Amino acid sequence: MRDTPYLVVDEHRLEANLAAMAEHARALGVALRPHAKTHKTPEIARRQCEHGAIGLTVATVGEAEVFADAGIDDLFIAYPLWATGPRAARLRSLAGRARLRVGADSIEGVRMLADAVHAGRPGAVPLAIAVEVDSGHHRSGVAPERAAAVAAAALEAGLHVDGVFTFPGHSYGSGAAAPAAGDEAAALATARDALVAAGIPCPVVSGGSTPSARAADGGVLTELRPGVYLFGDAQQWELGTIEPAAIALSARATVVSRRDHVAVVDAGSKILGADRAAYASGYGRLLDHPDARITALSEHHATVTFPPDAVVPPLGTVLRVVPNHVCTAVNLVDELVVEPEGDEVAVWHVAARGRNA
Amino acid sequence: MRDTPYLVVDEHRLEANLAAMAEHARALGVALRPHAKTHKTPEIARRQCEHGAIGLTVATVGEAEVFADAGIDDLFIAYPLWATGPRAARLRSLAGRARLRVGADSIEGVRMLADAVHAGRPGAVPLAIAVEVDSGHHRSGVAPERAAAVAAAALEAGLHVDGVFTFPGHSYGSGAAAPAAGDEAAALATARDALVAAGIPCPVVSGGSTPSARAADGGVLTELRPGVYLFGDAQQWELGTIEPAAIALSARATVVSRRDHVAVVDAGSKILGADRAAYASGYGRLLDHPDARITALSEHHATVTFPPDAVVPPLGTVLRVVPNHVCTAVNLVDELVVEPEGDEVAVWHVAARGRNA
Repeated sequence: MRDTPYLVVDEHRLEANLAAMAEHARALGVALRPHAKTHKTPEIARRQCEHGAIGLTVATVGEAEVFADAGIDDLFIAYPLWATGPRAARLRSLAGRARLRVGADSIEGVRMLADAVHAGRPGAVPLAIAVEVDSGHHRSGVAPERAAAVAAAALEAGLHVDGVFTFPGHSYGSGAAAPAAGDEAAALATARDALVAAGIPCPVVSGGSTPSARAADGGVLTELRPGVYLFGDAQQWELGTIEPAAIALSARATVVSRRDHVAVVDAGSKILGADRAAYASGYGRLLDHPDARITALSEHHATVTFPPDAVVPPLGTVLRVVPNHVCTAVNLVDELVVEPEGDEVAVWHVAARGRNA
Repeated sequence: MRDTPYLVVDEHRLEANLAAMAEHARALGVALRPHAKTHKTPEIARRQCEHGAIGLTVATVGEAEVFADAGIDDLFIAYPLWATGPRAARLRSLAGRARLRVGADSIEGVRMLADAVHAGRPGAVPLAIAVEVDSGHHRSGVAPERAAAVAAAALEAGLHVDGVFTFPGHSYGSGAAAPAAGDEAAALATARDALVAAGIPCPVVSGGSTPSARAADGGVLTELRPGVYLFGDAQQWELGTIEPAAIALSARATVVSRRDHVAVVDAGSKILGADRAAYASGYGRLLDHPDARITALSEHHATVTFPPDAVVPPLGTVLRVVPNHVCTAVNLVDELVVEPEGDEVAVWHVAARGRNA
């Protein structure tokens, strides 16, 4: 027995989700390189590779270090790193012990990366880049037609160029997944064609978010990088990307206070995360009470409002709460409790928790 | 030199904020029992006590354990704990080594607490409760007039009763602080009078949030429990509770991508937290660019939009980003970098980070 709140992984559901996405990538004819920022857990990375992942995607040098330590030898830091100071030395060390690809969306950034790995100088270690393209999310990334300039600068600086990538983050919205997947394919095709027209081979065309993965264009993409698919969360539930019966991670939380149609449970933003997208119906969902809504969230309280005709669970009841955004929830804990069929059997270490730099 | 992103404490501002709140409590004639959930850091707890705090407030048994280990011997877990399983044993152990008070808002909860500390049985350890009252935030807490029933149950179960408390969380809103402080005083006075009318002494009347602290009623309250005041954050800045020049914690973040009037920095929700209150102008603020707004936040990207006539900082610039809600930001890191006047001198361990249970 363990004191609430804590995060639980349903191992059977996890395995089913891993298998389903692996099969989808195979059917689409693309490589699967899951984004490990979601789980930050070597045990899960190992399982992703067993299901056929060619390597992992990560967001930071710190995450890459953790997974390289765990034996993953093909890593893509899908982020426009600014590689100065200690980060430069860490990157060079990492590139010496894994097949490493880094994102880039500026000529200055590419030159910094080349300098970090001593490209073209004695003691150089190989580093590949992929040019980040903005496909409509408008975060980082160059306009697709500008991708060749960044790729050319990389070659000139002595780096290898794998190709192009994008994150179609605008897939997160009601009915937005298929149009975003279309934008993704169009932007990546334009960027790929720009590289090829400039005489730069472009073997890797990498895209993917969990909402858009099902609609991904296998005729353009060569690689898919979904993250959330293995667990699911309340966002994916409400976007229609996952059925509640497939959600593989939830917080266990105890009812500590109660009035009228409200129960307050002991899982707040410090274990669920405070994410609340515009389309979300609340601050998370209850797996066993789909009609209830989390109408307020504090650091250690979730206020759950039940429908007027519902029976509010009594004090002391342990409920399963699904975070809105599983990536930020997992980053709040040091371990995940693994439960096949409700029996606690194992704990997995979230080794890359907090590795922001 | 350290890789961004990381959280920095300005020690001079911190000391000034600690001194100002301590002086305010003295002038008001109330005891100060700061909420340590904000900093989770023994070194800061020690400084709060040096400034005259009578003890600390915490949210969980885990936080209480960390601060008891650090030598703080007077702790208030201001939370309606449901004390079963391992938590009951941990609570009893804690009550054996610190003067411990716990919140309660139900008769069932009080009986559970009494059972946990073996009240009235051989081997009992002393435990005090304070009855939580809802003063308008509508989270946990009983209606003020019902406080005496919970207090009577506590006495009957063999616990000590310190008095009553509330968290006026509805102080978080534009112009809401003074009205919330009024609600707080009214609810606490009603609850106190109910206890006294039932023949139950009520020496402790405890309230306080950072926004309402300045308007707290020293005629009713005997104790103040602000948390955020020592650092401040973008919420307090936008509520007008703190001047930006007094904000003592910020993230250092590097500009990694740039276009038009936008800079993307490498601090996202995994170091700033994803909190965004209805009144917030964005996902945090920039200390040196008050006209800029964080218009989007991902796990490792903050999209900063500058006014049309502003000069957008170049790639590689390190900016100071103030989180919306400092309590959730601090809970994302293992250490705080301490900088007097910009020179890095020390690191403080966030020992209670992640202690949710």
